[in-house]
Amino acid sequence: MTTLSLIQAAATRLSGHARLTPLLNAPLLDATAKRRILVKAECLQLTGSFKFRGAWSAVSALPADRRAKGVLAFSSGNHAQGIALAAQRHGIPSVILMPSDAPAVKIDNTRSYGAEVILYDRTTESRDALGAALTAERGLHLIRPYDDPQVIAGQGTIGVEIAAQAADLNITEAAVIACCGGGGLATGIALALEPHAGFRVQTAEPAGFDDMARSLATGTHQSNATATGSICDAILTPTPGTLTLPVLARLAGAGLTVTDDQALHAMALAFTHLRIVLEPGGAVALAAALFNPDLPDTVIVTASGGNVDPATFQTALTRFAA
Amino acid sequence: MTTLSLIQAAATRLSGHARLTPLLNAPLLDATAKRRILVKAECLQLTGSFKFRGAWSAVSALPADRRAKGVLAFSSGNHAQGIALAAQRHGIPSVILMPSDAPAVKIDNTRSYGAEVILYDRTTESRDALGAALTAERGLHLIRPYDDPQVIAGQGTIGVEIAAQAADLNITEAAVIACCGGGGLATGIALALEPHAGFRVQTAEPAGFDDMARSLATGTHQSNATATGSICDAILTPTPGTLTLPVLARLAGAGLTVTDDQALHAMALAFTHLRIVLEPGGAVALAAALFNPDLPDTVIVTASGGNVDPATFQTALTRFAA
Repeated sequence: MTTLSLIQAAATRLSGHARLTPLLNAPLLDATAKRRILVKAECLQLTGSFKFRGAWSAVSALPADRRAKGVLAFSSGNHAQGIALAAQRHGIPSVILMPSDAPAVKIDNTRSYGAEVILYDRTTESRDALGAALTAERGLHLIRPYDDPQVIAGQGTIGVEIAAQAADLNITEAAVIACCGGGGLATGIALALEPHAGFRVQTAEPAGFDDMARSLATGTHQSNATATGSICDAILTPTPGTLTLPVLARLAGAGLTVTDDQALHAMALAFTHLRIVLEPGGAVALAAALFNPDLPDTVIVTASGGNVDPATFQTALTRFAA
Repeated sequence: MTTLSLIQAAATRLSGHARLTPLLNAPLLDATAKRRILVKAECLQLTGSFKFRGAWSAVSALPADRRAKGVLAFSSGNHAQGIALAAQRHGIPSVILMPSDAPAVKIDNTRSYGAEVILYDRTTESRDALGAALTAERGLHLIRPYDDPQVIAGQGTIGVEIAAQAADLNITEAAVIACCGGGGLATGIALALEPHAGFRVQTAEPAGFDDMARSLATGTHQSNATATGSICDAILTPTPGTLTLPVLARLAGAGLTVTDDQALHAMALAFTHLRIVLEPGGAVALAAALFNPDLPDTVIVTASGGNVDPATFQTALTRFAA
């Protein structure tokens, strides 16, 4: 399982390859929120999301002979792009299995980072069976998006950076809110911040897709009733990870939820006050900090990704930008 | 006049107060441009533009007794917000003279940073006479937007950071393109990079408002035929500064120009590939790097500001985002 020393080792491997993202703030954003908000801008990470960190960590952790055969991922989103670029920069092949109805732009983006994209028919083919066949035939190593100790270690490097950046600002107490799908990001950050008693991690999820919040509240794996129906598509996972829930049950506070409109509103405020581009799923932590009354005076949030189509971004601006 | 040592002193004063902005890049942006582009993201600076650096430098350089009486600026834009926040954080008054027809959002933003905004009628009142009266009555110190050695020194801290960030990437030769109004930014960067022989500064301006390019070409101060008519409103100055032109004539390459459409296109590509928000005037250097064939393989550009109204940003996305 992921430990602080595994995270520190990942930070060493990521150094010079992933971007040390800034911790942004704005007086006018604080005035709107009526609290101090610091935003870890992972939308500025390579490939536009924090997923590159976990991907680089997992790829770089493989033994060289194993790695040379290549890596495999199931994803049509940010994890796919992270794996593709990490593989390309290691000079190894990557194969990404995507449903054939994935948006063309996501397929194109992943291919542009050098990945071989294999499309499958969700209604007639089994992704897992296809993946198993590829693994057997080509010796590819499957990298899961959150249930992988080295992926979690890579995401945890964000927590290492937050600790250092907060110390520079003399911040010793804060809620640290992470956008949450399977929980890899929140888990990595929680482990990285465990030695810092003043920081408490909380997850943020879309309302109606709050499997993590309910799992934390009950202590057992809860699932979402549906798989689709929120604009926060990047973080609509069915249930918490096997590796992530136990850590978060031990270290995290209560899970937070936000509506799609609150996510859009947070995107518009990030545009106006921070000049960063967020996707809906990457804005839920900021939305939670803006619109949840039960939080401490200082809140650090991850702005976890910025891969948003222009139409959705324009909707956020039209409805919520001043 | 500004010197490298004045810039280094400004960097010391800015440390911990201005943000060290990241030098961003994206493989897909490079593929579009067919060259390597690195983007100094000053839109992420406090107040949303590099102007905060020059403002902080000038305010902090004043003797304490002089500073305590307050500062004055003529501006309805980024310089006003930079001066207002720098003054607020020094605990001193600031007065900003703005035309009464300035957009309400700019007046509100400047006031939100604690400035006293005094509106005047452009058709019947003299800004300079009003400013002189305020200076005499209240002992305010006027800080000009570019013709001030300490303002130029503050903008030059961007060049200091670029030199260090480029060295981390083993980049020793590049064109360094700065968005250019009066030329304070380009001048500061050119002075900071003067010891680095592989870096050559070039200015970027809107087509039709290329007073600096023509002044550099002729060696004498040239003026623009009109004062309005480009969406790049932040950088529509009538003629180069008295302090800036001599430095740039000595250190800068040929001035570059871009069309308004190219600036909008650059905004859209920065949205898609870098996930940052640029205003048109803050995107002209990136536009020059994208659309000018006569540049070296590596180009470093300033993305100098991100204070854009949502409607203009949406126009950029509608017309140029994929």
